[in-house]
Amino acid sequence: MDAPPGSVHPPGAMTPEAARVAALRDHPKFRAACDALRADHARMVEEIVALTEIPAPPFGEGPRGEAYLALLRDAGLDGCRADEVGNVMGLRRGTGNGDTLVVAAHLDTVFPAGTDVRVRREGTRLFAPGVGDDTRGLAANLAFLRAMDAAGLRTRHDILIVGDVGEEGLGDLRGVRHLFAAHPARERFRAFLTVDSPEVERIVTGGIGSRRYRVTFRGPGGHSFANFGLVNPVYALAEAARALGAVRVPREPLTTHSVSVVAGGTSINAIPETAVMEVDLRSASERELAKLDARFLEIVREACAAENAARDGGLSAKIERVGDRPAGHTPNGSPIARLAAACVAGEGYTPAFEWSSTDANIPMSLGIPALRVGSGGRGGRAHSLEEWIDVEIEESLRGMRATLATILALAEVEG
Amino acid sequence: MDAPPGSVHPPGAMTPEAARVAALRDHPKFRAACDALRADHARMVEEIVALTEIPAPPFGEGPRGEAYLALLRDAGLDGCRADEVGNVMGLRRGTGNGDTLVVAAHLDTVFPAGTDVRVRREGTRLFAPGVGDDTRGLAANLAFLRAMDAAGLRTRHDILIVGDVGEEGLGDLRGVRHLFAAHPARERFRAFLTVDSPEVERIVTGGIGSRRYRVTFRGPGGHSFANFGLVNPVYALAEAARALGAVRVPREPLTTHSVSVVAGGTSINAIPETAVMEVDLRSASERELAKLDARFLEIVREACAAENAARDGGLSAKIERVGDRPAGHTPNGSPIARLAAACVAGEGYTPAFEWSSTDANIPMSLGIPALRVGSGGRGGRAHSLEEWIDVEIEESLRGMRATLATILALAEVEG
Repeated sequence: MDAPPGSVHPPGAMTPEAARVAALRDHPKFRAACDALRADHARMVEEIVALTEIPAPPFGEGPRGEAYLALLRDAGLDGCRADEVGNVMGLRRGTGNGDTLVVAAHLDTVFPAGTDVRVRREGTRLFAPGVGDDTRGLAANLAFLRAMDAAGLRTRHDILIVGDVGEEGLGDLRGVRHLFAAHPARERFRAFLTVDSPEVERIVTGGIGSRRYRVTFRGPGGHSFANFGLVNPVYALAEAARALGAVRVPREPLTTHSVSVVAGGTSINAIPETAVMEVDLRSASERELAKLDARFLEIVREACAAENAARDGGLSAKIERVGDRPAGHTPNGSPIARLAAACVAGEGYTPAFEWSSTDANIPMSLGIPALRVGSGGRGGRAHSLEEWIDVEIEESLRGMRATLATILALAEVEG
Repeated sequence: MDAPPGSVHPPGAMTPEAARVAALRDHPKFRAACDALRADHARMVEEIVALTEIPAPPFGEGPRGEAYLALLRDAGLDGCRADEVGNVMGLRRGTGNGDTLVVAAHLDTVFPAGTDVRVRREGTRLFAPGVGDDTRGLAANLAFLRAMDAAGLRTRHDILIVGDVGEEGLGDLRGVRHLFAAHPARERFRAFLTVDSPEVERIVTGGIGSRRYRVTFRGPGGHSFANFGLVNPVYALAEAARALGAVRVPREPLTTHSVSVVAGGTSINAIPETAVMEVDLRSASERELAKLDARFLEIVREACAAENAARDGGLSAKIERVGDRPAGHTPNGSPIARLAAACVAGEGYTPAFEWSSTDANIPMSLGIPALRVGSGGRGGRAHSLEEWIDVEIEESLRGMRATLATILALAEVEG
């Protein structure tokens, strides 16, 4: 899961969905599956540790993907395979016509190659980079499969279990993007869950879109005094940053801009040759994001033109789009959102609908019902070297039951 | 000598000064001094090498200063000593009332501690960091002293020979600044020569002033999306840089500004906590420089206020003045400038009056006649690791004769 979301909305009232979920929770096979989860818990913890200790830096998910693919095969899924971009997946067939629920967790972490990913245990806490975001999600999905099998649970819909690449940062959601662009059965994908990070109360229904840019202003450079009058890349950067800072953006749908990183120049007595800025544009609305994006590109062109008009020497700007995540929304009143909230409430949690940027952005942007749900247990310090999860069994199972119920409610239990 | 100068003016006509210089050059004792320079040349070259190989990084001139002080003592000067800031000096007494010509060269180089300062010889070329800027100047002044003594030349004015600290970069002229602020005999300083770098044709009569700032904008920082609406230090920096870039400055006296270095932020998805800019303001006129300086400080305050008005969280700016060199000018028509030009022309060179930033800025700013003159010979690549000088004896002596004549003309030869 990318950085924490902004707005929090209380979920709507639980009505027909609450009743459906109550019935599911009373189903003997669901109870049997919950017992199986408990019996399997220690194994799941060992799988979390084993997977966490396989480094999976951005663009380096290969080894963990192979290991996860082997585990999907062991779980008895059909058609286990890796795709062209490195996603690994397998299918649990349903009894229906092939309509499919996609249940994903992401393979990648934010941590660069070389990070020490060994797991340190303190009581029921596991400390390691990536342990909760999202390695626990990968292992939880395996545990859900085994529990369904142990209980003899059949569903109407097929369930496609995916370990996907590129969720974090510059990965730019490329795994799930590819899945929805190129998977042979993508037309049958009826709903999408990403089981990402422990907390089950926070149900992400809003996908914050983003455009990220690196802009490099370049001029001839020279001596600060002898060459005064030459274009200065910092002046162009400054004009562009100032103008972006002055752009009025709506609070609803929430839309934001940030010039987050700037760098340029080498010496106080030299006009720099280059100045670079990294810019983050986000919105809850794809339309507002597109507007802001277009305005930003215009601002960069205007800032270049203004500096070239003010001084000599010829300044240019190279614009690289380094991030592009579509915005999307699964309405809080939609069946999928109400079902998930009822499953979470069924375990005594208080569900909240939130906005964030997750793998669910992609199906949301395509109009496919999609949510981010939790892998259970508690955790913290995601994206830091002090990341941890707590696998204390009662809290861990409580959260997992909520998500297992969500999966089964969406896939529709038979019999 | 700091970075190369801007404007070049042809010198005025040579009139009474030219006649005075012609008479000096015909003086039997001057001819004897020139013979002594020739006989002493190999020793001077060895002293250049020995001094060059004593590292003298900015704020680390101590060891070279001690060595130079010993050489001043060996040259028989009076009152040899180091002052509070590390300048070393000794006096060659004149026959007059104690009016003093200061003849300086700077001890410091631009090269940091740890730079390999060993001298490599190729034919008559010596390669080493700092060999020409300004180690040759230190050695040349010793050679001048010995030549005057060998020829029995007496002068009316005292000559204070100084090896000064802090000429380069952030040294900020602190050595000569201290000399003119605190030397017990400073009231008797009638003229100042800095013998800095080889070229004798370029006589620096204009001292470019500068103010240098490091400005650190600081806010609370936060997540680019979740904390949108917080002050962004980059936006304040951008507004300040843009506003400085838009300030109209005169071409005459030449006045310049440059935002030369910017840095801020750590991650594309975070509002930075800090953003830093380094700014270089210069002018040939102290008045224009003071105006630009005041406007810049106002701009920083305005940019802070604007960002605090536009967003929440409280932004501040820390302003550090990291450089302060006063501007000054020795009129091209003044006796000292005409005498120096006549001495240079007397050796067949075509003198040119130039602007630069040297130790001479300080006396110029106090209205004391001051010039930068050359140490003779040829050289290049100053401020680079490939710095070199050529000590081929004929060219070397030709330049040295011009500067020796300038010293003697200003100190007024007796008899």
